[in-house]
Amino acid sequence: MNPHAFDQAIALTATGDGQYAGATSPAYANMVGPFGGITAATVLNAVLLHPALLGEPLSLTVNFCAAVADGAFSVSAQPVRTNRSTQHWVMAITQPNAEGVAETVLTASAVTAARRETWSVDDEPMPAVPAPARLSTYTVPSPVEWIQRYEMRPIEGAIPHTWDGSGSDSLSRLWMRDAQPRALDLCGLAALADVFFPRVWLRRATRVPAGTVSLTVYFHAGSVQLAECGHGWVLGQARAQAFRNGFFDQTAQLWNEAGHLLATSHQVVYYKE
Amino acid sequence: MNPHAFDQAIALTATGDGQYAGATSPAYANMVGPFGGITAATVLNAVLLHPALLGEPLSLTVNFCAAVADGAFSVSAQPVRTNRSTQHWVMAITQPNAEGVAETVLTASAVTAARRETWSVDDEPMPAVPAPARLSTYTVPSPVEWIQRYEMRPIEGAIPHTWDGSGSDSLSRLWMRDAQPRALDLCGLAALADVFFPRVWLRRATRVPAGTVSLTVYFHAGSVQLAECGHGWVLGQARAQAFRNGFFDQTAQLWNEAGHLLATSHQVVYYKE
Repeated sequence: MNPHAFDQAIALTATGDGQYAGATSPAYANMVGPFGGITAATVLNAVLLHPALLGEPLSLTVNFCAAVADGAFSVSAQPVRTNRSTQHWVMAITQPNAEGVAETVLTASAVTAARRETWSVDDEPMPAVPAPARLSTYTVPSPVEWIQRYEMRPIEGAIPHTWDGSGSDSLSRLWMRDAQPRALDLCGLAALADVFFPRVWLRRATRVPAGTVSLTVYFHAGSVQLAECGHGWVLGQARAQAFRNGFFDQTAQLWNEAGHLLATSHQVVYYKE
Repeated sequence: MNPHAFDQAIALTATGDGQYAGATSPAYANMVGPFGGITAATVLNAVLLHPALLGEPLSLTVNFCAAVADGAFSVSAQPVRTNRSTQHWVMAITQPNAEGVAETVLTASAVTAARRETWSVDDEPMPAVPAPARLSTYTVPSPVEWIQRYEMRPIEGAIPHTWDGSGSDSLSRLWMRDAQPRALDLCGLAALADVFFPRVWLRRATRVPAGTVSLTVYFHAGSVQLAECGHGWVLGQARAQAFRNGFFDQTAQLWNEAGHLLATSHQVVYYKE
């Protein structure tokens, strides 16, 4: 059996101490370069593959410095500080420029942690929404390939059908999962945090160039809880807080079908005009 | 005139290409090491002092690897990618360990941007709250020194007076500003994003050890807009979304008195029990 397209896309080959070789996957192609979520998942995968790894991801921040060019790239992941129960990582992706000199296309950091069971509670309850079975899958009017890798069932705030400048808010809610069945895991969750289309399109009902500059994911679930979700649906909610002079922010939450908050995420996004 | 305690605390001396020397300030001492907000402001200051700086801060992520020891530290700030209108920074703070070997106590990244005026709107309106003049300043029952550097006027979700396990939510709203007058600026705003006491104390009305692991600030205002705020009040709002197995997240918003969103911020925080 062939590996899942997602696992092919995030696959890395160790080439040295904390050094890995990877390549972009046409299956996750975006307008320019790959889907940001798959790149975030790939750099997280470098941490997960590292032999010195302590615990599981707690936070991940990815800064997109430049479009990743189609083809090969190098990933580095270095543990710069290991404490008793937390570990701090610095990562980067480089690609050779036209002169063959390695250029940084992405910087990232992560904290991993060996967690212990404690008093726990969700303070952001899952909104009351119809079950995924009661909604139909939405074919997103998008020319980009990666959209086809996900099954999406919007509840509100779907991508506008008409671009008439009529938008009034930036909130989207949708059920989502891999189109080809795959059990949820940490890399899969990181990618899902970046599935939302640019909030500026919704808020303005106007399509303008936009691209994520920096993305942070906080993982509230570990690998065991994610595995229990299997190929279940994830409820995603995203909205902006401010659009200001070329950049807007997005705050997002991801719950499993049982209503447990799996991750919260934030990003800041460039937009034109 | 002596410089403001804040400016003394974040002061850096250039020692090389993107290398700076600094020292902790007793005025901003926390229980162990300095107030996280002053450390975040210091590492941002290294970027602002760098001769190659393009534009102004858009995002800042700071990972607290270990408590900063009282005394001297070294800061590095390197621009790893400069585009036409954005620049990507990687920063770190190191201190010598007992054997004199430099150890990483903080990693950070930032994106700066030369912004242009565009269509803009705030999607997270300032909540309706009483004006600061109608509230009294709160003397926080805290043994730590940095708290005295800020004037705080809580509106709701003040630090519990009785630790009886009765908490029911994690939302705090307060007006805040430097206790000794100082015009708001980018470093000052970064520090304000970390002023909130640990959400777990409020949610549980139980005081447990807690400390920020990773902090992200998105800057919606630039230096000109901040200067216009002068020594005005900033409305801070913070709440948690999930408390899970030793770590909770916090999402925060900072508005000026005129109701403009200046920054949004997120952090993930360790807690015990």
